[in-house]
Parts: sequence; C-alpha cells; structure tokens
Amino acid sequence: MSNTIQFKGYALTGKYPRKWSDLQVLSYQPKTFQPDDVEIAITHCGVCGSDVHTLTQGWGKSKLPLVVGHEIVGKVVRVGDNVKDIKAGDRVGVGAQIGSCMHCKSCESDYENYCPKGIPTYNGEYPDGVISQGGYSTAIRAHQQFVFPIPHEIESRHAASMMCAGLTVYSPLKTHGAGPGKKVGVVGIGGLGHYAVLWAKAMGAEVYAFTHDSSKMDDIKKMGADHIDFHKPLSRALDLIISTRDVFDQNMSLDTYLSMLFVHGKFVTVGLPDANNVLPETHAFSFVPSGCFLGGSAIGSKKECLEMLDLARSKKIKPWIEEMPMCDVKKALEGVKQNKVRYRYILTQDIENK
Amino acid sequence: MSNTIQFKGYALTGKYPRKWSDLQVLSYQPKTFQPDDVEIAITHCGVCGSDVHTLTQGWGKSKLPLVVGHEIVGKVVRVGDNVKDIKAGDRVGVGAQIGSCMHCKSCESDYENYCPKGIPTYNGEYPDGVISQGGYSTAIRAHQQFVFPIPHEIESRHAASMMCAGLTVYSPLKTHGAGPGKKVGVVGIGGLGHYAVLWAKAMGAEVYAFTHDSSKMDDIKKMGADHIDFHKPLSRALDLIISTRDVFDQNMSLDTYLSMLFVHGKFVTVGLPDANNVLPETHAFSFVPSGCFLGGSAIGSKKECLEMLDLARSKKIKPWIEEMPMCDVKKALEGVKQNKVRYRYILTQDIENK
Repeated sequence: MSNTIQFKGYALTGKYPRKWSDLQVLSYQPKTFQPDDVEIAITHCGVCGSDVHTLTQGWGKSKLPLVVGHEIVGKVVRVGDNVKDIKAGDRVGVGAQIGSCMHCKSCESDYENYCPKGIPTYNGEYPDGVISQGGYSTAIRAHQQFVFPIPHEIESRHAASMMCAGLTVYSPLKTHGAGPGKKVGVVGIGGLGHYAVLWAKAMGAEVYAFTHDSSKMDDIKKMGADHIDFHKPLSRALDLIISTRDVFDQNMSLDTYLSMLFVHGKFVTVGLPDANNVLPETHAFSFVPSGCFLGGSAIGSKKECLEMLDLARSKKIKPWIEEMPMCDVKKALEGVKQNKVRYRYILTQDIENK
Repeated sequence: MSNTIQFKGYALTGKYPRKWSDLQVLSYQPKTFQPDDVEIAITHCGVCGSDVHTLTQGWGKSKLPLVVGHEIVGKVVRVGDNVKDIKAGDRVGVGAQIGSCMHCKSCESDYENYCPKGIPTYNGEYPDGVISQGGYSTAIRAHQQFVFPIPHEIESRHAASMMCAGLTVYSPLKTHGAGPGKKVGVVGIGGLGHYAVLWAKAMGAEVYAFTHDSSKMDDIKKMGADHIDFHKPLSRALDLIISTRDVFDQNMSLDTYLSMLFVHGKFVTVGLPDANNVLPETHAFSFVPSGCFLGGSAIGSKKECLEMLDLARSKKIKPWIEEMPMCDVKKALEGVKQNKVRYRYILTQDIENK
C-alpha cells in the first residue's frame, strides 16, 4: 500500500510562463512510510510569508515541482509501529520542520529546531532523496517528533497558523524571558506579529506594538497591545523586541530599535528577507550603550509547541484569520505579498478524490 | 585648598603640528572636590586602545587639551565626608568611568556602567562643565562609586590594566555564563583578549583562542587556552565568543564566527573600531541556524569589578605586562597602535613636583 499511494497538492510546476502564484493540482508520491511516521489527512493549512519567498524564488531556487505550506492541521489516518501518544483519528498539526537527525547535541537538548540536519516541511530533501512537499495538499507524512496533538478546545482553523507563525514568535518570547515585569516590543503586526502581541500579553508582559500601517491600529488595541507606537522612538525602555519585519527603513532604522533596549536587551529578528537583502549597516557602537544584542530564532521545538498550545488553550487565545478554500490559494498568496491579509489566511481542504 | 590645586599630566594639546602621540606635561585644575569624591595620587596607569582611538581622533574630535588614561591605580590622599569604606592611604583603582546619575534604572540595578549619563574618565564633561582628565597624570578625583579598593595580594602594576581591559572582558564573560561546561572563544589576543583567556579559564570554561599572529601562540598556551585555532573554523561548538577585534576580514568573517556558536550563543564585540568603520555586512539568515546573537558590552559595574579583583586575588591571576616610566608614553602609544605590545603597557609615575 504505502509505496504506490499518491497525494495531491497545489504545486508550482515551473513550466514557463507560469507565474509564481499560479499553482495547479498535481499528484505525487510521498516519502516512504517509516515506523516513526504519522500520516495525516490535511484539513487546514495557513499561508506563510515563507511560502511566498519560496515560490517567488526569493530565498533561492526551489526544487520544482513543489507544494508549499507548513501550517498544517489534519486528522491522523495511520501511524507507524514506533509512534507513541498519537493514534489514528487524532487531530494534529505539523509546522515548518519535518525531520532532524535526532541524536546531535541540539536534538538531545530539546533544540531539534536547530539541528543542522533539520528537514524543512517543503523544499527539503529526505535522506532517501525524496523532496519534501508541504500542506497545500491532501496529506502529509511526518516523523512523530514533528507532529503536535491539538487540544480539543482549539479549533483546527485556529491551530493551523500556530504551527509556524505562532511558534516562531512564541519560542523567542519564551526563551528570552517575556513575562510579568518585562516590556516587549513587537515590530510589524502581521501574521507573526499579531501572534507575538497575543502571546506576550498572555505571558504577562507589557506590550509595545510598532506598525507602519495606521489602518491596523484599532485591531492592535483589540489584540491587547498596551502601547501602539506609530514610529515613535523610545529610549532604553524595552527588554525584548521581536521583529517580524523583513526590511528596515531610515525613519525607523535598526539602530533606532537597538536604542530602545534596556541593558542586555535583545532584538530578535524573525523576519527573513530575500537572500539579496542584507541587514542594515550598523556599528559596534550601537551595541555599547546598553550591552544589547541582535539575533535570530528558528521556529521552535516540540516542547515549546506543546507549551504554546497549552497557553492558547488555557487562555482561550484565538488568532485573527481569514478562511478560504484551498482553490483560492492564488488570492491568498498575492494577498500576503501585497500585505492585504488580516492577519493570516487559512486554506481549507477542497481537493477532490482524497 | 581644593579649588586652587593643580594636577599635572601628559596632555595632547592639539597645537599644530604636534603628532597625536606627542604629549607634553601640562598643569590643569581638577574638578571641584565633592563630599562623595576620593582624591588619588596616581602611581600606575595602563595604556588602552581607547587612548589611541581618542588621541588619533578616530572616535571623533576630542576636547583638547586632554590627558587620557583610564587604567589607574594609586594611593588615596583625601576622601569627602560621604565616602564610606575608603580612607586616605588606601590603594585603589579607577577605570574608564568616573561618574553616572546614580538614580536611573541602570544605576539602581548595578548597571551604572550603562547609565545614559555616565561620565567617561577622560574627554567627558562633568555637570559643572569641567572636562574630565585621565590617568597619565599625577592625580585624579573620582566619585566613590567609581573607586575600587585593590586587594593587598595584587600588585599595583598588575591591578592597573584590570580597571579597563580586565573588567571589559570580565563583565560579558560573567553576564553570559562563562563557567564549567561552557566553551568560550576569544578573538584577538591583545590587552583585552589575554585577560579574556585568563578569566575564562579561571571561571572554569574551555577556552578557544583565535589569533592572526602566530608569534603569540606560545604565549597563549601559557595563558592557559585549551585550543588555539589559527583561522580554523569550528561549527556550532561555542557558547560564547568575546571578540576584541576592531575589524574583520574575509578569511575570518563575522558570519564565520557566528557559525561557530551553539544554540542561543552570543558573539560579544568589545572591540570598538573608529567611527567610520561599520560592522561587516550580514544577513538575518546568519542568526537563524542557531538562534544566535551579536552584541556588545560596556566596561563593567563596581560589583563586577570587585568580583573580578577577588577572582584575581583568589586564583593568583597576573596579567602579562610591560612596565615603563610615564615619560615613555609616546613609545607605549605607538606600540599599541602598531600592535607591538605584549600584552599591556603600564606607565609608572614620574612627573616631578607632585
């Protein structure tokens, strides 16, 4: 059974003159089913900025044909013999990572998201040479380490974008101490940024939101931000800044943000611009007045994902989403690229003949 | 008495065509003596890279005439009425900072070294308009917060360069967890770097030294470094890197160093290049594989300085120095600029008519 099964997904085929957002339903053979694998019938998939960067080839040449999507929720249809704690019928999620070596120092320290041999959910390569295909599709197979049970209190449409957008900001917030008594800045209130506001508030921090887009102000208040600083510089006020912005401008430069950090504060960029877009010029002096830091973060671990889901469950946190059927994927992708989305598009399953 | 007293120091006068390293003995009136002040007859002063940057105007235009030097040790000759725990006759040190506001969040959190109103030991300005003058001189007046008692087991010539070089690397090592089980890289083994090797070893860390200068290899082994990686890249091995280097090159780029950090590792630059020398170009992607950080640090607090002195005392740590009389200051300054120093020049008092 396992080796002849075909999944179907909305794929970029690369056939000229197809546009980056023109996807077509394609059948493909999934990776070989292994004893640690879980096979999931996908019901929902969020549309992430990574999908756009990958399809537009902004992060480099993709392995075509390719199905993107890594904010996946669905129902388990099959589990391998080694799989614990997950069974057929369970509602589960898969995020932006689908494999790791399982035995390096990172993997053994609950940092599997930093494993040098991590396999991304799409456009990655399994050890057997199969190219990983994402969640704009009927189904996916994933190692149990990268499959996250969804608490029954959280709707699938709400859980989907937590798998990447939610986790990507939860991890640095948790790691770098967002909580009571801490002041957290969030730069760029889109898919990731709106989660950063929601989580940071739920963790008990005081939240400063920064946006270029005055049309989002009312929304951001409703999300719970304590302060909305529309281009207003603060000095040495913040303990942590999570930046979801891809590109900085002169009005609100990287140095301006660094100057907002209190002693040993951290500016964590989770926005990843296209490969040709380097970080703005900065001088060692910018880090001296507060001994501050600039750094990054990569999604999150399973441990963090389960903590995040439990926080969402216990605090009844719902993301701000717009649902649409998977066949509207072009509209969704272009809406992300044009920054029209409020605040995440969630595609729902509609491919026939699952 | 206090307002007519004159100190003497080796000053850059700025009179054309004097060279940056041609200092001449000048008399000047010190700041007004305040109830919290300690007056110190200087016996030793280290020669710091900051002195060179300041005299060459590399960090911007200096307030001339100017006496530099901020690795000061001497004997207390007078204390104000508010001064506790320091008395006339005590042997004390003064580092790169001589004042702060004393009541901001930084000052109240033992982060007075990050006070936005901090006054540098030279080329700074007191609230009364007096320009602060450094330690290539007969004496200095400093607020008690910035005066550090020297344990009697530590010789003055050894304590002097601890006041800036030592403290500047001790602070980030301590703050960012150098200790048993941690791997610490030190980039650039000069005045600051050799202290970083000595302290990190004393704290129990495993030390990786990076140098461009093969003539220093034997010394660095004797300092205690566990590994001397002469341009050899490591991958994800280090928890913390202290970089004393001003400028990076293509062979050993900033990105190469970032790639050596384990998850959430930190690259702390304490080298401060001239103002026109920005940090090398980097991309947000460089911080993703390990969620690592690039940041800075500014000298250290009194609390840290006292801890450092106690570590030096208990572990009998001595810096590697070359002593010379203060009249040889030109030779010392040019030796620092030309990177001839092994590893710190210490000037000893020789100005007549103190």
